[in-house]
Amino acid sequence: MEPITFLGLLAGTFTTISFLPQVIKTWKTHSTKDISLEMFLLFCTGLLLWILYGFFLQNVPVILTNTATFILAFPILVLKLKYR
Amino acid sequence: MEPITFLGLLAGTFTTISFLPQVIKTWKTHSTKDISLEMFLLFCTGLLLWILYGFFLQNVPVILTNTATFILAFPILVLKLKYR
Repeated sequence: MEPITFLGLLAGTFTTISFLPQVIKTWKTHSTKDISLEMFLLFCTGLLLWILYGFFLQNVPVILTNTATFILAFPILVLKLKYR
Repeated sequence: MEPITFLGLLAGTFTTISFLPQVIKTWKTHSTKDISLEMFLLFCTGLLLWILYGFFLQNVPVILTNTATFILAFPILVLKLKYR
């Protein structure tokens, strides 16, 4: 693998995986007072637009990384709506 | 502007701007109990790697969108460290 491709994958792994500790925390505590509803509404909408963009460009990394991030960020939005 | 370029810019605008309501909320409430420190540590690290990736590729949109997101996400990390 090219070093530059590795760097891109590493960057994508960090920004995607980052949502995992937030899901776990929110799932455990059921507390979402300090989390902004608007942030997760805008962020999840943006991710869906990125996925659409990836499909139009037929760019697999864009589709995959944004789908993975959506799978982790969307439950935070659902938990925020449930426990607010 | 090509419709596909517009879609990419729109997607980037949503995912970047999404952090603004969270910064405002955290700035106002001084409360960060429900926010995961690990999330913002990993996310900000990932953004720095994306910016580095953008510089290596000389891809201006990658540099700009990730720098803008970093400018909004990093203060949340600082506030989390300050008010935990």
